[in-house]
Amino acid sequence: MPGKPDVGGDAADRSGISANRRTFMGTVGAITGASALGGTALADDGDEKTEVGGEGSRTDGDARNAILVIPDGAAQAHISGARYLKAYREDSEEFPLNVTPGGTTLHVDQAEQIGGMSTYPDNPDRTPITDSAAAGTKTYSGAIGGVGSEDEYTPVKTILEAAHEAGMATGLVTTTRITHATPAAFATHVPDRGVEDEIARQYVDDGNVDVLLGGGKRHFDPEERDDGEDMLARAEEQGYQIAETEAELADADSGKLLGLFGSESDRSAHMSYYVDREYVDDTDEPGLVEMTEKAIDILSDCENGFFLMVESGRVDHQGHANDNAITHEQLECDEVFGTVLDYAEDDATSETFAMQVADHETGGMSLGWDAYDMDWGAIDDIRASLEHLESAIDETGDDRGATVDVVEEHTGFELTEGEIIDITGGDLAKVLNKRTQMGWSSDSHTAEEVPSYASGPNAEFFGRYFDNTEVAVGIAEALGLEFEPGREIDYEFRD
Amino acid sequence: MPGKPDVGGDAADRSGISANRRTFMGTVGAITGASALGGTALADDGDEKTEVGGEGSRTDGDARNAILVIPDGAAQAHISGARYLKAYREDSEEFPLNVTPGGTTLHVDQAEQIGGMSTYPDNPDRTPITDSAAAGTKTYSGAIGGVGSEDEYTPVKTILEAAHEAGMATGLVTTTRITHATPAAFATHVPDRGVEDEIARQYVDDGNVDVLLGGGKRHFDPEERDDGEDMLARAEEQGYQIAETEAELADADSGKLLGLFGSESDRSAHMSYYVDREYVDDTDEPGLVEMTEKAIDILSDCENGFFLMVESGRVDHQGHANDNAITHEQLECDEVFGTVLDYAEDDATSETFAMQVADHETGGMSLGWDAYDMDWGAIDDIRASLEHLESAIDETGDDRGATVDVVEEHTGFELTEGEIIDITGGDLAKVLNKRTQMGWSSDSHTAEEVPSYASGPNAEFFGRYFDNTEVAVGIAEALGLEFEPGREIDYEFRD
Repeated sequence: MPGKPDVGGDAADRSGISANRRTFMGTVGAITGASALGGTALADDGDEKTEVGGEGSRTDGDARNAILVIPDGAAQAHISGARYLKAYREDSEEFPLNVTPGGTTLHVDQAEQIGGMSTYPDNPDRTPITDSAAAGTKTYSGAIGGVGSEDEYTPVKTILEAAHEAGMATGLVTTTRITHATPAAFATHVPDRGVEDEIARQYVDDGNVDVLLGGGKRHFDPEERDDGEDMLARAEEQGYQIAETEAELADADSGKLLGLFGSESDRSAHMSYYVDREYVDDTDEPGLVEMTEKAIDILSDCENGFFLMVESGRVDHQGHANDNAITHEQLECDEVFGTVLDYAEDDATSETFAMQVADHETGGMSLGWDAYDMDWGAIDDIRASLEHLESAIDETGDDRGATVDVVEEHTGFELTEGEIIDITGGDLAKVLNKRTQMGWSSDSHTAEEVPSYASGPNAEFFGRYFDNTEVAVGIAEALGLEFEPGREIDYEFRD
Repeated sequence: MPGKPDVGGDAADRSGISANRRTFMGTVGAITGASALGGTALADDGDEKTEVGGEGSRTDGDARNAILVIPDGAAQAHISGARYLKAYREDSEEFPLNVTPGGTTLHVDQAEQIGGMSTYPDNPDRTPITDSAAAGTKTYSGAIGGVGSEDEYTPVKTILEAAHEAGMATGLVTTTRITHATPAAFATHVPDRGVEDEIARQYVDDGNVDVLLGGGKRHFDPEERDDGEDMLARAEEQGYQIAETEAELADADSGKLLGLFGSESDRSAHMSYYVDREYVDDTDEPGLVEMTEKAIDILSDCENGFFLMVESGRVDHQGHANDNAITHEQLECDEVFGTVLDYAEDDATSETFAMQVADHETGGMSLGWDAYDMDWGAIDDIRASLEHLESAIDETGDDRGATVDVVEEHTGFELTEGEIIDITGGDLAKVLNKRTQMGWSSDSHTAEEVPSYASGPNAEFFGRYFDNTEVAVGIAEALGLEFEPGREIDYEFRD
């Protein structure tokens, strides 16, 4: 099997870097000391479903399962914004006097431990601001599952791979392309996040991930891949069921699963934003809560337990775009974390470690701009993404009346003459933010520490400030997996 | 004694508001059920020092003392910024790989519990964004120590008053005018924060606060007060020693103390910013750490224990100004919290509850603007406040060469032609932020939940998200003081 990891015990000895240096190069997923058994997927045999989980044997930890929820790009303002939106919806009359955590509870409030996490990367230029790839593995920006530099890239083992080798079932769920940086950093190894065709190939050929749900069909589809290889057919050969709609996801009830979803207009890219899925498109995409429930349902069949990462991946995109609808997306993520905590609580046969933490902040988002006030009714009324609005306005050509109608249809705002001029000039985000008084300092990532929430075995490990390299350490401890940060491996990737 | 609080037990019964409503109107300082004994200051008798603490008797709690540190306007980006600055200073070669909490420790890291606090006020217009007055008492923006509206203002009891009545010593320490909203909300009662002469009078005439250290001499000085009353003389009659310089502060070693500090150029307003105190002015102002140490030293003489609030009050002003030097100010605040934790640890005879939490965020500050990079060397090099720089540049008139010199002297930046033009146009903050890549979304306050740090008895109460009304509740629990949020009192204030 091409690209199958060799986890020979002397890999670490080939490292040319100092021990001190390697401490900082430890990755979220870096792990060592696990058994050398690569997972082998069982071929599908008629109606017989492929079993999930590897063939390894597992040393029990306090936790049987671990679930990590990542709202990509979400720091405190995003979390607080979800609370404001929820409070406004639950009782707009009492608002904001019901924004107190006791009055409007988010699921993150139920976590046993609150902490904070540093996110800086290990870049040659020493910038303190990471991208999502380097946030998944403490490395240079752009690297997936490895350290060093683009010229001297060294793959390292991830927590997901270690879990798989210990016989656990594994899953990656996201609203971005499944080949995007955050999920990719848990299971694949390439020097540059841009080679998503190769990331898709590694997912399929390595078969380490039992459940893969997200967007990005174009990197599996022979008609869209540069090399023309049919990763969909090959995935089926590897024992994966393939689902492309909400209905097909619902039908999949056990065995390895590759779900590739998207809007009807663009099935091959990211999945739609929450507001577009919910209010705009006549879509057959599942929601992130449904995807999470399905992943847990399938993975929990594995006697050795499971590791699951769920990413609310487009919070980040809305941060980049300075889109008010980000609060809707973050509230969906909170529902996902609630689903995870409910499973952890209901699961009578085992213990589940559950954690929510972002990879970095995006947008320098703040709840307030220049008026000592905000309009949460207006934020609640925004029922389409900025991307959808911009696209719909583009389609009107220069028709100002049609632009007014588009904006009113999706936001309820009756535009002023000045606002129409600003929108024509390309300032739609600014017009909407002026209305809502949501503030943004950036269209990029920022470096503040992000809040974290942990429950279950070893949660106390995260009741403090910690570095992102410690996430995999704490999860490994919870699961009883041996762990060494930054353990290098031999891995053949294709350029 | 004019304005002395009447704490008759039936005050609450006169409330016309519902129980549910009153829950939201509970104040940070609101407390009831305490003994009805007002504190009486002992007159100074020759060399005999006035004793600190009231005459009440105290029911012991798990904590003997409580110290609350408030970095006004500081949310996570401010805390993280202090860590980046400290890490850069400790090892600029390794930076940012030493920004990990394990590599560069802030004193907040030593707190036993991390949590988050909601900050919205109870305004008639239902804005979710508070001012510092309403953050001290959950009330309408501008109100000090009371609820309702400017027309129908009702004073409520504060945690400091309750501590005083229970015989504890009390202190308020800040870098703003001592009559500014945050300290005032702990011990005075006026419908509008603007009447600082009256706030000063209440401090002096009520004598509830044993140690008062900050700026704002103008509100005590007969030559600057509108009514010409001499609050300095009256404070001495009440038994207060008065200190106006670092040396005089050092000399005060016991007894009631009123310290009114300021820069030599403006002794009557706020104290200077940290960077101006440290690097610019030939000043005789004490630092906030010294002030805190002195307050603790004096207050700990009281057998009944003490309550102390220390505010790093000008973090907020630098947030409004979008001033990079805010990170220096926040780092001073972290040193203050370290001083507090050290006292709590060293204090063998008793237990001290210690907490740091802001009243709200200011500036929508973010660590990053638009370049996926920041220049922390440049931030470290900024050794004067924006206010000082603007003032010094103003003094140069139109002399561009002198402007260049002023900026280079205090920041090390060699200005470009374009930057000189921008500065002449009034964009100094923008020029500096472009250099450092610090981001700001606002020049006002914002509504995100702020991080909190608590240690000592009852710290676990704060290991979660909570509302600002719960701060006084948790402190009262730690101290064993009975508490009811929003307990109304009769109090005669002067219009």
